[in-house]
Amino acid sequence: MKNLMLAQSGGPTAAINATLAGAVQQAQICGKIGRVYGSIYGIKGLIEGCVIELSSRLDNTSRLEQLCMTPAAALGSCRIKLKSSQEDETLYQFIIATLRKYEIGYFVYIGGNDSMDTVLLLSEYLKSKGIDDISVIGAPKTIDNDLCEIDHTPGYGSAAKYIGTVFSELACDCATYDSPSVTIVEVMGRNAGWLTASSVLARQNGLSAPHLIYLPEVPFDTQKFLCDVKKKIELDTTVLVAVSEGIKNKSGNYVAKTNLPNAVDMFGHQSLSGVGKYLEEIVSEEIGCKVRSIQLNVLQRAASHLVSAVDIEEAKQLGAMAVCSAVDGQSGMMASIVRREFNTSYSIYYKMVEIEKVANKEKKVPVEWISADGNNLNKEFLDYVMPLVQGERSIPLKNGIPDYIKFYW
Amino acid sequence: MKNLMLAQSGGPTAAINATLAGAVQQAQICGKIGRVYGSIYGIKGLIEGCVIELSSRLDNTSRLEQLCMTPAAALGSCRIKLKSSQEDETLYQFIIATLRKYEIGYFVYIGGNDSMDTVLLLSEYLKSKGIDDISVIGAPKTIDNDLCEIDHTPGYGSAAKYIGTVFSELACDCATYDSPSVTIVEVMGRNAGWLTASSVLARQNGLSAPHLIYLPEVPFDTQKFLCDVKKKIELDTTVLVAVSEGIKNKSGNYVAKTNLPNAVDMFGHQSLSGVGKYLEEIVSEEIGCKVRSIQLNVLQRAASHLVSAVDIEEAKQLGAMAVCSAVDGQSGMMASIVRREFNTSYSIYYKMVEIEKVANKEKKVPVEWISADGNNLNKEFLDYVMPLVQGERSIPLKNGIPDYIKFYW
Repeated sequence: MKNLMLAQSGGPTAAINATLAGAVQQAQICGKIGRVYGSIYGIKGLIEGCVIELSSRLDNTSRLEQLCMTPAAALGSCRIKLKSSQEDETLYQFIIATLRKYEIGYFVYIGGNDSMDTVLLLSEYLKSKGIDDISVIGAPKTIDNDLCEIDHTPGYGSAAKYIGTVFSELACDCATYDSPSVTIVEVMGRNAGWLTASSVLARQNGLSAPHLIYLPEVPFDTQKFLCDVKKKIELDTTVLVAVSEGIKNKSGNYVAKTNLPNAVDMFGHQSLSGVGKYLEEIVSEEIGCKVRSIQLNVLQRAASHLVSAVDIEEAKQLGAMAVCSAVDGQSGMMASIVRREFNTSYSIYYKMVEIEKVANKEKKVPVEWISADGNNLNKEFLDYVMPLVQGERSIPLKNGIPDYIKFYW
Repeated sequence: MKNLMLAQSGGPTAAINATLAGAVQQAQICGKIGRVYGSIYGIKGLIEGCVIELSSRLDNTSRLEQLCMTPAAALGSCRIKLKSSQEDETLYQFIIATLRKYEIGYFVYIGGNDSMDTVLLLSEYLKSKGIDDISVIGAPKTIDNDLCEIDHTPGYGSAAKYIGTVFSELACDCATYDSPSVTIVEVMGRNAGWLTASSVLARQNGLSAPHLIYLPEVPFDTQKFLCDVKKKIELDTTVLVAVSEGIKNKSGNYVAKTNLPNAVDMFGHQSLSGVGKYLEEIVSEEIGCKVRSIQLNVLQRAASHLVSAVDIEEAKQLGAMAVCSAVDGQSGMMASIVRREFNTSYSIYYKMVEIEKVANKEKKVPVEWISADGNNLNKEFLDYVMPLVQGERSIPLKNGIPDYIKFYW
């Protein structure tokens, strides 16, 4: 029997290890796979031959459950853009040497849109070399929810639940004092507003915050923003604002462009941070009331203590699906989620999609789901997001403190 | 039967509403109190006559439980330092007029060290005027844990559990990539290091982070800090640092208030950077590796979704204790916690302490609980904090989103 290699890539999430656990469990029960290995630091581990054995480390359901509920990427991750084989074929030779060394027949790469580029390049290279005994399959993840060809990505539901909860708590905190104040919360998501939009969840149980929500899908106008804030202060005194890190002005430039060295990664993505602070200064200058900014920062992608049960279960199933697909001999595909009936009760099914439809693309919030004045969400978004944040899961605890899994560090 | 007035003051916590719930419940069951009222925005509500009736709003156990698990201050809060009666006696006359209007015999003020100053001034004023039919009692709260005459304050255990959990998750997130990096997390606590010290909880289940912990109790030396960080990078590659917002240098000046070069913002203002951001810039400049700073900000005081069950129960009991004491005719006292046997199993009892021993004072982390090199905690601190973070409580949820109580906003 051939063996399975697993790896993780891109930014950590609270659900990416559930996909890893689902893949390992499927390998253990399907009876068609020998040993399971993990490549450390994503594709880098395959290039450098840094691999650990996973089967014995995850040989019971309680260890698998512990892995499920551990945040970040238990195998480590990377942000490496694989050069094309025309540019550097030796990289591919190293990868194949490692896969051969461990007698791998199936390689599942868990990651976002950039990582799907790696799946595409590697599967095409294998095909071009006539190597048909190694399947390369992608399994999706990203809190940003910006992958194409999938209803929603694993990791998003948990991050949305975290953001909705935190905004509920911030709403209570903001209402504590009676003097006018503005609290600006900067949310991740790069060029897509899915995460910031989920702040609207806080409003579902009687709270009026967040009062204003700004997504990158709508060009940001500072004067309109100030006008919006002034109106809300008159109405509600304490105003809570959700803003995406990646909002752009009408000219298409990021409102917050960091001037740090090394702020562009290998995929050409600008590291985005600081829009909250920037808007804080503008409100302070132009309105003059008490104002503070809060960055949810990496907390929003690491909060295993507050995941969506739906998200964790789907993440597991996608890992299992990816393994099944590889065993079936497919390659260059990604495991995906299709929603059956959007406007009635929540129902999904899993299917495989071609990787070239996913790699290097971004899916944004449909403009018709955003209110006409550009600072709120319509009911369509709520109908979309509500089923994704349902259910709770407990983290593994020892003495009241998380007991997370640790493989290599 | 005389009535009970309740009010909340100072910074919000995740447990202050549990004290409110405990006080209301005690009033309902003791058979010696008529109606229960709440003053909105702390003492300000009594001065301005802004009061709501609480008995009917909290007439069943499920509403009381919902209140228990709602963050911030359900009655609103203030940061008013009451002038002495010599300076402005009319304030006291307004307060007494409101208390008389609602036929109040018992006034319980839930707050921190500044709020206990209000309890002291008001109880002394009543005494000086020969008014002996109104009892004024303090109930403690503060995430900072800096109150004197109490083993630990309600709100601290929950914030400590939140901080320990978040540091566990950040430790996983930091270990994701293999390049050297430094993550600096700024924690609240004013001049006391109790909250920052609780980050050490993350290390109890096999993680090595946080690698360095800096409290305000030890004078901060930037050169030593850089030296500490360099050593840890060599050892662990990715370094997680916990730092108190209130650290001071040897001259006793706040490190966070140090003026930075290039710290002039876009409007020409010299910005007083947070200490995390300040240290981030120093590490970037002097060490040159990837570095980021994270402010836990108000999230650490509002996280009802991650409280300590021990903390919530004690907070409730202190509210009940304050009411009992008022009914017994005491005044100018604060409900307090005494720990029975510090080094063996956790056991406490409640007692009343004189308010002048508490008001306007700060309790710091004992220097002998801090390691000799000033960047770690000794076992004594762990023995102290571990019992305070035990047990979990679920928040009230509707459709997967918190359903928090809302009285007046």
